[in-house]
Amino acid sequence: MKPNVYAANCPTRQILDRVGDKWAVLILLLLREEPMRFNQLRRTIEGISQKMLSQVLKSLERDGLIKRRAIATVPVTVEYSITQLGLTLAAAVDPLRDWAEENLKDVLAAQRRYDSQQKEEAA
Amino acid sequence: MKPNVYAANCPTRQILDRVGDKWAVLILLLLREEPMRFNQLRRTIEGISQKMLSQVLKSLERDGLIKRRAIATVPVTVEYSITQLGLTLAAAVDPLRDWAEENLKDVLAAQRRYDSQQKEEAA
Repeated sequence: MKPNVYAANCPTRQILDRVGDKWAVLILLLLREEPMRFNQLRRTIEGISQKMLSQVLKSLERDGLIKRRAIATVPVTVEYSITQLGLTLAAAVDPLRDWAEENLKDVLAAQRRYDSQQKEEAA
Repeated sequence: MKPNVYAANCPTRQILDRVGDKWAVLILLLLREEPMRFNQLRRTIEGISQKMLSQVLKSLERDGLIKRRAIATVPVTVEYSITQLGLTLAAAVDPLRDWAEENLKDVLAAQRRYDSQQKEEAA
C-alpha cells in the first residue's frame, strides 16, 4: 500500500498525529539545544501539566525521537536527550516555526477582519 | 516582546496550535491541489466528522488560510479554496510530510522495540 495520509488507517496519519502535537514539537526543539531534566522541561514550557509532560515524553521515547537516561544520583535524576531520528524531525519542523514567526501579523490581521465581519453580519 | 513559542501567552503558540492540527494540515494540502466542496472534503479525508470539518474550515478561514465562496446553485454550493497565505503555510508543511513518509519504518520499528522492552520489564 502506498502511504496515503488521508486514509484513516495509514501509519503516516499516526506520524502526523505526533508531529501535529504542539507539546511534542516544543519538547523536540528544546532537546535539540541540550539534554534536559524533567523539571527543567516543565519550567521552560509554560502551561504544560506534569501529567501531560510525562505522557508526551513517553510517546516521543516510544517513537525513537528522544532517549531517557536515569543517572544514579540521590534522588535519581532522569535526563532526556534527542536522538538522530529526532534531529531529522526537528529539522523538518524548522520551516514551520519560521513560517509562524514570519506570518504572525498576517494571521492576526485576518482574524480581526473575520471577527469584525461576523459582528456586522450578526448586527 | 520577541516571539517566544515557549511562552503560554505568545501568539506564535496559537499558530503552532493551528499548524499542529492534523485536520487543518490535511485540508490545506488538499485545497492546494484544487478548490473543493464541503462534501468532497468530507469524502476524501477519512475519519473526519461533519462537525469537526466545519469547525476546522471556519478556523482556517478566520486565519486567512482558505477562502469560502457560496455559488448560487440550487441548493447553494459552497466551495473552499486556498489563499496566498495558505499556500506559503502548505509549502512549510511539505518537509514534515516528506519526513513522515521517509521515516515511517524507523518510527514503527522504534515503537515495536519499546513495546517489547516494556513487556519484558513487566514480566
